[in-house]
Amino acid sequence: MINPNEKNIFMGQIGHDKDLLEELTSICKDNNITLGKIEAIGAVQKGEVGYYDQKEKIYLTNSFNAPMEILTCNGNISLLNETPMVHAHITFANRDGSTCGGHLLTGTKVFACEYIIYQFTNATSLNRTKEKITGLNLWK
Amino acid sequence: MINPNEKNIFMGQIGHDKDLLEELTSICKDNNITLGKIEAIGAVQKGEVGYYDQKEKIYLTNSFNAPMEILTCNGNISLLNETPMVHAHITFANRDGSTCGGHLLTGTKVFACEYIIYQFTNATSLNRTKEKITGLNLWK
Amino acid sequence: MINPNEKNIFMGQIGHDKDLLEELTSICKDNNITLGKIEAIGAVQKGEVGYYDQKEKIYLTNSFNAPMEILTCNGNISLLNETPMVHAHITFANRDGSTCGGHLLTGTKVFACEYIIYQFTNATSLNRTKEKITGLNLWK
Repeated sequence: MINPNEKNIFMGQIGHDKDLLEELTSICKDNNITLGKIEAIGAVQKGEVGYYDQKEKIYLTNSFNAPMEILTCNGNISLLNETPMVHAHITFANRDGSTCGGHLLTGTKVFACEYIIYQFTNATSLNRTKEKITGLNLWK
Repeated sequence: MINPNEKNIFMGQIGHDKDLLEELTSICKDNNITLGKIEAIGAVQKGEVGYYDQKEKIYLTNSFNAPMEILTCNGNISLLNETPMVHAHITFANRDGSTCGGHLLTGTKVFACEYIIYQFTNATSLNRTKEKITGLNLWK
Repeated sequence: MINPNEKNIFMGQIGHDKDLLEELTSICKDNNITLGKIEAIGAVQKGEVGYYDQKEKIYLTNSFNAPMEILTCNGNISLLNETPMVHAHITFANRDGSTCGGHLLTGTKVFACEYIIYQFTNATSLNRTKEKITGLNLWK
């Protein structure tokens, strides 16, 4: 466990037609956000999410090829191979209000999106490395 | 993109039988919160949410006339016509744990609700105006 | 309504096989977090959530005995009987991306989980007591 401090808040929009995960990651890289948290709402033209098979230790992909609302997009920012990595989970709503979601993957195409990113600072940063039991890249 | 600072945190409850969106908006107006973020959990007696038809550029309404948990209610506060506007998306859970949700609309009646609102301050505020491609009121 | 200040941020992981609610509560007790907010993403081996029957004024339990993603786990920390109490709601995603959720109960077994807890400070703390109309432990 670490006790970071808040340094900066970044609040803005992701452009129409952009890839949600790629854009969030670019914002972090461009602003040297190596630790922090992220949240967003909005809408997508299509969504691509992962589900981790805990037994096989691989991500499965669910593709939702429909316009949907982003009910939540919550996650954190830390380092993987010394590069900022956005780890976010996302919940979508369909036309009838039914919901779906998963681990945010590239391929999620923005219709409109409003984000708030908190940049944390800390003497000790969080670095992800492969953890044996789960097979995931977790914090050391 | 802007870089606001946190000014105040407001933490409290929305009264039984109140309209969720109207109350959140009132709190912002009464406390001069013109920029910020909002989050809440709780339960509703019924829910009213929007789904944006990205082709027709109109909001459709989904009415859920049942008691439900509020799993998430996340969003932001900015200005529309110089007045604080709460833009929030909400996820509900039904009796069997199934979920639904959308863009929070008036007509969502509170059973019990606990909110945390962050008031941001910034030299440049965010103002919403009609944007052509999406048809939505986005930040300039 | 109260206006707390942020004191500390706690960012870390919940261990594999741990009970999510018990661990979050322990973190609060161990660090004297009596007021604050909590958020987490990750995955569980199984989930146990509540749905409040607003008429009967009792919690019903929904047990989801499957590996699932944690799309959101949002809530707050305040006092019940002078002890820190975590009130959190959780949204899960299944293998096919379908979602479910409710009021987080003990019995939710962690696969991997990353949390951010904000500790608030305030002259006036929030204490929960039984409220008659809802039958819930709400803030006085």
